[in-house]
Amino acid sequence: MKALFEHRCFGGLQGVYTHASEATGGDMTFGLFLPAESADGPVPVLWYLSGLTCTHENAMVKAGAQMWAAEQGIALVFPDTSPRGEGVANHDDYDMGQGAGFYVNATQAPWAPHFRMWDYVAEELPALVSSAFPVDADRQAITGHSMGGHGALTLAMRQPGRFRSVSALAPICHPFGSDWGRKQFTAYLGPDEATWTGHDASVLMQEAGFDGPVLIDQGTKDQFLDLLKPETLSAAMASRRQPGLFRMQQGYDHSYFFVASFMEDHVSFHAEALWA
Amino acid sequence: MKALFEHRCFGGLQGVYTHASEATGGDMTFGLFLPAESADGPVPVLWYLSGLTCTHENAMVKAGAQMWAAEQGIALVFPDTSPRGEGVANHDDYDMGQGAGFYVNATQAPWAPHFRMWDYVAEELPALVSSAFPVDADRQAITGHSMGGHGALTLAMRQPGRFRSVSALAPICHPFGSDWGRKQFTAYLGPDEATWTGHDASVLMQEAGFDGPVLIDQGTKDQFLDLLKPETLSAAMASRRQPGLFRMQQGYDHSYFFVASFMEDHVSFHAEALWA
Repeated sequence: MKALFEHRCFGGLQGVYTHASEATGGDMTFGLFLPAESADGPVPVLWYLSGLTCTHENAMVKAGAQMWAAEQGIALVFPDTSPRGEGVANHDDYDMGQGAGFYVNATQAPWAPHFRMWDYVAEELPALVSSAFPVDADRQAITGHSMGGHGALTLAMRQPGRFRSVSALAPICHPFGSDWGRKQFTAYLGPDEATWTGHDASVLMQEAGFDGPVLIDQGTKDQFLDLLKPETLSAAMASRRQPGLFRMQQGYDHSYFFVASFMEDHVSFHAEALWA
Repeated sequence: MKALFEHRCFGGLQGVYTHASEATGGDMTFGLFLPAESADGPVPVLWYLSGLTCTHENAMVKAGAQMWAAEQGIALVFPDTSPRGEGVANHDDYDMGQGAGFYVNATQAPWAPHFRMWDYVAEELPALVSSAFPVDADRQAITGHSMGGHGALTLAMRQPGRFRSVSALAPICHPFGSDWGRKQFTAYLGPDEATWTGHDASVLMQEAGFDGPVLIDQGTKDQFLDLLKPETLSAAMASRRQPGLFRMQQGYDHSYFFVASFMEDHVSFHAEALWA
C-alpha cells in the first residue's frame, strides 16, 4: 500500500492510498480521514460509498464530512466505485463499467474478471483498513449517495452485526423494479434473476430489515426520482416497522449540495450508534 | 444574465450565473449562495476570491462555506479568476493567463484587452450582484485563498469603507518581493514598477493598513511558503499595529483541506463585522 497524498484536515489527516487488490485484480485507490483522536488508539469508522461516475475523491472533497467526523472523533473511508485502469472493461454510458460497479460481483463478460466490488468493499478493504490504520473493526457504520446508498443498504442488511447503523442519501432503492436497474443487473449478473438476490434494498428491507437504526434522506426535486424509487423503500420500512427515519427534503436535488446539506445529520446519527 | 444552475443548499440556494462583462469584454461566470433569510430582504455578503487555476467552482464545491454562511444568514459570491473563452489570451504555465488574473487591470499585450479583473471584481460584479439579488451593498466583507487572498487584501485596503472586514487563507503576501511575483506583474503591467502600485498586500499594509479587523491563516506545511512570503505581511501588520490576527496553523498545507478546516472561523469572523 502506498500513500499518494496526506493532508492535515480539521485537526486530523485526510489521506489517499493505493494498493494491489486481490478482489478486483488491479490497483485500487481509496480516501481515509483519521481524526486527531486516532493518535491515541483505534477509533470508530464510517464508510461512505459513492454514486455513479464518482471516484474515491468526490465525496472526500465535496461532502464536507470531515468537519463532522473530526467533531465526533470517527474515521471516514471513501472507496472507489469500480476497478479502473488498463485492461479493465468500460462502457460509453455513465451507468455501466468504470465508475459504475454497483457493489456487486459481476459474473458476466466483459465485467467478470475485475468488477468484484462486493468482495472489495465487504471484505478486502475493511480488512486492509483495520490492519493498517487505527480503526476499530468492531465499531463500523455505513452510508452512501445514490448508487452508494444502494451499496450501503445492501451491505448493511446482508451482513447482520457488521454495521451498527446505516444511512443513505438519495439511494437507488429498488433497481429490480425499473428497466434501468434491470439493465445493469442483467449486464453484470446475467438474465437469471435468482442470481440477483440480495442486491435490492427494498426487497432486503421487506424480507430482512436491519438490526439497528436507519436514516434515509431524499430531495423532492431530485432529477432521478423515477430511477431511485424512494417510495418502495419507504413503504418497505414502514410495513416492516423498521426503526428509522425516512425524510423527504423539500426542494433539494441529487447534487452534492444536497449531500453536504445533510452530512452533519448523517455523521451525528452514526456517531450516536458508534459511541453507544 | 442567465442562471446555469440553482441548487437548494443548506436551506438556501447555490446558483451559478453567467453574464456579458464590460470590464473583461466577454462572458463571465460566478457562483452565488443566498441564505434562506434573503427571502425576507437584502442580506450581508462575503466575497470569496479564488487562487491560481481555480474557476468560480472550486471554492463553491470544496470549501464548505455555505454551511456557515447559512448559519450566519449571509450571502457568498464566488467570482472566476480570469476572463476565459475564444479570443482570450492564454499561457502554458499555470500561473499566467486564464485562471491567473491576479486581480489587476493588465496593460500589456496579449493580456490588455480582456484581463481587467480589478475592474471586474471591484466594480462591475458588485454592482450587478446587488442590483439583481437581495444582497446589501452596505454590508460587504471579503476573503480569499492564495492569489485570491492577495486579491482580497489589496481590494480591501485600496477601497476604504467598502469592506467591513478582510481575511485571507494562505495569501500571496508580497509578490513584489519575489522573482515569481515580479514575473507576473511585469507580464501584466509592464516593467515600470510605478504602475504596479497598490498590488502588494505587504506594501499596502505598511503604508495604509485596513480600517477594520483582519484575519490571516497560513499553514506551516504549505508547499508554497517561499512564494507566499507570509513573514512580510505578518511583520507589516505588527509594525503598523493593525488590529487583527495572523495565525500559523501547524501541519496544514496549501490545499482546500486547509481552507475547509478554517472556513467556519473566517465566516464567523466576517459575520461579526457584518452584523455589528
